[in-house]
Amino acid sequence: MSMLSLVGVGPGDPELLTRKAERVLREAEVIAAPVTAPGEQSQALGIIRDLLDHHRQQMLPLLFPMRADRAALAPHWREACRLVAERVRAGKRVAFVALGDPLFYATSLYLLEGMRREYPEVPLEVIPGVSSLFAAAAAGTFPLAEGAQQLLVLPATAGETAIGAALERSDTLVLLKVKPAFDAVMKLVEGRDDLALLFAERVGMPGQVILTDRAAIAAHSPDYLSLLVIRRTGSAASKDSRRERGT
Amino acid sequence: MSMLSLVGVGPGDPELLTRKAERVLREAEVIAAPVTAPGEQSQALGIIRDLLDHHRQQMLPLLFPMRADRAALAPHWREACRLVAERVRAGKRVAFVALGDPLFYATSLYLLEGMRREYPEVPLEVIPGVSSLFAAAAAGTFPLAEGAQQLLVLPATAGETAIGAALERSDTLVLLKVKPAFDAVMKLVEGRDDLALLFAERVGMPGQVILTDRAAIAAHSPDYLSLLVIRRTGSAASKDSRRERGT
Repeated sequence: MSMLSLVGVGPGDPELLTRKAERVLREAEVIAAPVTAPGEQSQALGIIRDLLDHHRQQMLPLLFPMRADRAALAPHWREACRLVAERVRAGKRVAFVALGDPLFYATSLYLLEGMRREYPEVPLEVIPGVSSLFAAAAAGTFPLAEGAQQLLVLPATAGETAIGAALERSDTLVLLKVKPAFDAVMKLVEGRDDLALLFAERVGMPGQVILTDRAAIAAHSPDYLSLLVIRRTGSAASKDSRRERGT
Repeated sequence: MSMLSLVGVGPGDPELLTRKAERVLREAEVIAAPVTAPGEQSQALGIIRDLLDHHRQQMLPLLFPMRADRAALAPHWREACRLVAERVRAGKRVAFVALGDPLFYATSLYLLEGMRREYPEVPLEVIPGVSSLFAAAAAGTFPLAEGAQQLLVLPATAGETAIGAALERSDTLVLLKVKPAFDAVMKLVEGRDDLALLFAERVGMPGQVILTDRAAIAAHSPDYLSLLVIRRTGSAASKDSRRERGT
């Protein structure tokens, strides 16, 4: 059936693809993937390399230069939506590959928004994927949350003050893309032995780093694809302080 | 290799199993699954029914009666750990199946804790899975979070006050097991057209309900396996109020 599928391909390890993602990717006639420069290899495409049939399937690289401001990216999104809509209208099944899960801090969200606004008639589905957060926790055998605990996900761009406040409020704090805030966060948690840490970089990819030892984490220089999870351990003291805050 | 694998089998649809979970489950000699009563069919086991080989693989039901207090469950966890450790020591590869992801609000966390405490010498690995949260979002084509947005996961047992406060603080609020707080939450969001809602029940299972229409959600009676996602939509007003709060 001609439609657009946003397909989560997981964090990096091809074995973390779901069976559904595998089927949809094999069935697709067009495989669309974001690239930051012409001719560049897409990370998401690298994960599914072994599934692709270049004789039968058309590869459609969609150019999104790395830029902070969304306004400058708008024409690129419009062009990406046009290219995708054109192919679906011609009767093709198009799969857009997304690292991790397509609806959780992913590039595919901008494509989804553009398609809904400019081509609302194009049928669309989402295939969920394993987020790098869960793959990181699994690699470090690090519990994320249980029972009545609160888990807060916060991109580290939120700034030091927001991170400090979040740390006091949540049982588990997940800091995505932690690099710019890394030194400040490590200072915040210094001497806090009621906190357990998980640091993960390039999960499931070549050069994967998984650390739970505090000293090893502090000694590491994170790169762009890194996250830090901070979990309050179950000491009586931390439970009491939580009760006092009324949360 | 003889070890214990905690395997996430996703939220319900057997196609949402990862290829890694499929491989590990086929390789395992013992398949352990939680049941709430003797002779009962495990939900997680139902998902992987078609993978199992009852001639070659031993099924090991582990009894955990449905009870709120953790103390009463302690002897059941101890017994479960003993049964698992016995088999790993006898050279078997044991796979414990967990709905969704094994480290995210899952029963397997108690098994993990018990094994680490009582049998730290037993080798253990975790295979991540697709959480029902991501499957629900995919089924409803509902964006969870992007850019610098905060996402907070909160079991609804936290109570109405905590939920109300969380609603003001987060861009996206995920209420797990929303049933007991459902009426109170629907009152909290009444008339708030800056909020988008996703309700999901029995994701990927028979009887799945996925709703994004406010009136349809309000008219529904949720069951135990239901969640509600509340997302602040990107209006200029909500961005300003967020800035004022300094978060």
